Amino acid sequence: MKAKLILEYRGDDYCGFQNQPGLSTVQGELENALKILFSGEYKKSGKLDPITVSVSGSGRTDSGVHALAQVVSFIMPADLEIPPTRLQSALNGILPPGIAIRSTTFLDDNFDARRSANDKCYRYNILLRKTKPVLDFNRAWCVSPKIDIGSMIKAAQLFVGEHDFENFHALDTDVKTSVRIISRSELCRISQCELQYFVCGQGFLKQMVRRIVGALVAVGEGKLTPSDVHDLLTLNKSRAQLHIETAPAYGLYLKEVFYT
Amino acid sequence: MKAKLILEYRGDDYCGFQNQPGLSTVQGELENALKILFSGEYKKSGKLDPITVSVSGSGRTDSGVHALAQVVSFIMPADLEIPPTRLQSALNGILPPGIAIRSTTFLDDNFDARRSANDKCYRYNILLRKTKPVLDFNRAWCVSPKIDIGSMIKAAQLFVGEHDFENFHALDTDVKTSVRIISRSELCRISQCELQYFVCGQGFLKQMVRRIVGALVAVGEGKLTPSDVHDLLTLNKSRAQLHIETAPAYGLYLKEVFYT
Repeated sequence: MKAKLILEYRGDDYCGFQNQPGLSTVQGELENALKILFSGEYKKSGKLDPITVSVSGSGRTDSGVHALAQVVSFIMPADLEIPPTRLQSALNGILPPGIAIRSTTFLDDNFDARRSANDKCYRYNILLRKTKPVLDFNRAWCVSPKIDIGSMIKAAQLFVGEHDFENFHALDTDVKTSVRIISRSELCRISQCELQYFVCGQGFLKQMVRRIVGALVAVGEGKLTPSDVHDLLTLNKSRAQLHIETAPAYGLYLKEVFYT
Repeated sequence: MKAKLILEYRGDDYCGFQNQPGLSTVQGELENALKILFSGEYKKSGKLDPITVSVSGSGRTDSGVHALAQVVSFIMPADLEIPPTRLQSALNGILPPGIAIRSTTFLDDNFDARRSANDKCYRYNILLRKTKPVLDFNRAWCVSPKIDIGSMIKAAQLFVGEHDFENFHALDTDVKTSVRIISRSELCRISQCELQYFVCGQGFLKQMVRRIVGALVAVGEGKLTPSDVHDLLTLNKSRAQLHIETAPAYGLYLKEVFYT
């Protein structure tokens, strides 16, 4: 039996999702909390404690990136009887303040948070303000209120469909192909001083969303035109010819992971 | 000449607005930043430094209470020529990350942030969720999603008008009268899992907004009826007869201060 957990976390508290030796990561904190919980349960029943739990996440998130609903799965030890509600409340008691389990379900062994995932949706928060963020510190990217939002909305639409995102990922990655399919790419004005960008697709390259957002803000600031973005997407122009800033990690949220 | 500053701050970083010996307060941090800035200016012009600046705030906020737009004023030293934009950017550079100046204007000597203030508006954020808040940690009060929002909306309306708020303030205060006039008291559903309560009036007693919110949540949880709230407002029932929890400080925001 597999346990499926939906997690919320503050990215600025951790060095990314994935385990890294000597660093505090979301995966590390969760595996540690599971070890504490399960060891306690084994102790109660007088059994030996063979437990080291490995969790599988729907995907990595970089250091600083938040999650509203990251999905992880792991094999539930067959000899432990813990109902999902108690598993959730016990874990929330053990986990540090930056991570919370929002939902817990038990599924059959075929489920795997990473392999079974279909689309993923991300949200990026942009604040239009001149002064440093205070209440939204580490929660949004602050850009000039004078930005041209109409052009950004148009440019955002260009990303929908199948494209080679060669110009829109971190260079330190080794991937077979940089072709990806985007099903939604939409910039929304939430209020006078807040924009949210939504992007959904089956898979994303490293820093891809942050480079898309960097390109959109460059369009809003007049540093790039929507036509430049088109050229970068069709590989008529390279990243050496047209500079894109990578938007900061702290504005990005893993919003939802879809499973069939 | 008076300077009028509009401030945003994170309440959880400070022990309230007002100066307290040995503690970090918003007023203390701001007066310290002004002292650093003005001393530097005097030094540049070779003058002696007689500067200790006292700022006047529109009102106190308790420890933990945030501000979106607190207003403060102080006398600008007559012999310093600093334009408002430079005053603002210099102060934002000196102030700690939990405080930002959003606007700076110079007004005549009659202006005083406290005495000249008319209405003040507060907002209180409530999240409907079972698990601990993570991204909204110290920014909202989390209550059960099973709460009866319709009854809370009705109860909120009862506070509009002139009432004796004897049952709705902290007992450790010494005030001439607990009669206050509320011009707006409205609970709004912002999304599936977020409520915001807005309250405006000329003056508020210590912890008054937090006790109003405590009463509204008690109504939502079925612990009080709107009729009980009416009895508490008309003094037909006392706080000894009907218990109200004081809502936590970290959900409260000073939203706006109005001047004629």
